[in-house]
Amino acid sequence: ARPRVGYFYSGKTGNQLLGEHIRKLTVKDRKSVPVVCQEETSVYDAICTMFLEDVGTLFVVKEGGVLVGVVSRKDLLKSSMGNQDLQSIPVGIVMSRMPNIITCSPDDTLLSAASKLISSQVDALPVVKEREGGDDGPEVIGRITKTTVTKAFVELGEGATV
Amino acid sequence: ARPRVGYFYSGKTGNQLLGEHIRKLTVKDRKSVPVVCQEETSVYDAICTMFLEDVGTLFVVKEGGVLVGVVSRKDLLKSSMGNQDLQSIPVGIVMSRMPNIITCSPDDTLLSAASKLISSQVDALPVVKEREGGDDGPEVIGRITKTTVTKAFVELGEGATV
Repeated sequence: ARPRVGYFYSGKTGNQLLGEHIRKLTVKDRKSVPVVCQEETSVYDAICTMFLEDVGTLFVVKEGGVLVGVVSRKDLLKSSMGNQDLQSIPVGIVMSRMPNIITCSPDDTLLSAASKLISSQVDALPVVKEREGGDDGPEVIGRITKTTVTKAFVELGEGATV
Repeated sequence: ARPRVGYFYSGKTGNQLLGEHIRKLTVKDRKSVPVVCQEETSVYDAICTMFLEDVGTLFVVKEGGVLVGVVSRKDLLKSSMGNQDLQSIPVGIVMSRMPNIITCSPDDTLLSAASKLISSQVDALPVVKEREGGDDGPEVIGRITKTTVTKAFVELGEGATV
């Protein structure tokens, strides 16, 4: 028999190949640095941190970087409308609280994180890992946002190696 | 000579194919409905509209839907920190104003719009078209956001036909 050389049809459509390419991108490779505050931080200081760090979402942590909540620009805007003293309101009462937080893991694909951003209608996901021996919650080690995904889309579209 | 039948190698890499595919997506096909207000709208009412319509950016227009400015959640959050009466401040004094607004056209690629979102560090672009006979500015006909791009990324990754 003749040796099988050359190119063979894999049976995959163009769309499937594209999907495979996108699915190679991981949260680990794409995550950015998390910006955090504490439950006791005032809403006023949280807004200042958001502007200084130029992010739209803060992760609320306790000792060891353990995730306790998430506070978005939307949450802070809502509380700042109430004509209250923003310096006296702690972030803890306006944030979304664990376990009602959608997270992702460093080993997830960027696609799965992007899909969670859309289905849960949030702008950012905390990237978390389980702590050894700790059962009070996972540690925050990064951040994936719609900006992360938009950047990856632009790089793929421009044909940059990703 | 034998007829050349079967599948042939196009010389393109997966990255190039993916780039080509992404470049086929257009602003026209992907844009969502613009949410607008007027310059005279109060900051308070603008925040309410943002929550009711669940968007992060409002486009400020005058008669005929002509674009005069853009106001983001960030702009509104900044002005709501000032302890002023939000009902008495008009959007016109906190918005970004034409011609300092990055826009896109329905015939642009989604890739070019996504690239503008990243380079100009904004969450949304107004989609505009020039008005016939009007020289007081372009008309707003849609909106492209990081959510639009994230949705397209998810569809491509899941192998859905786009």
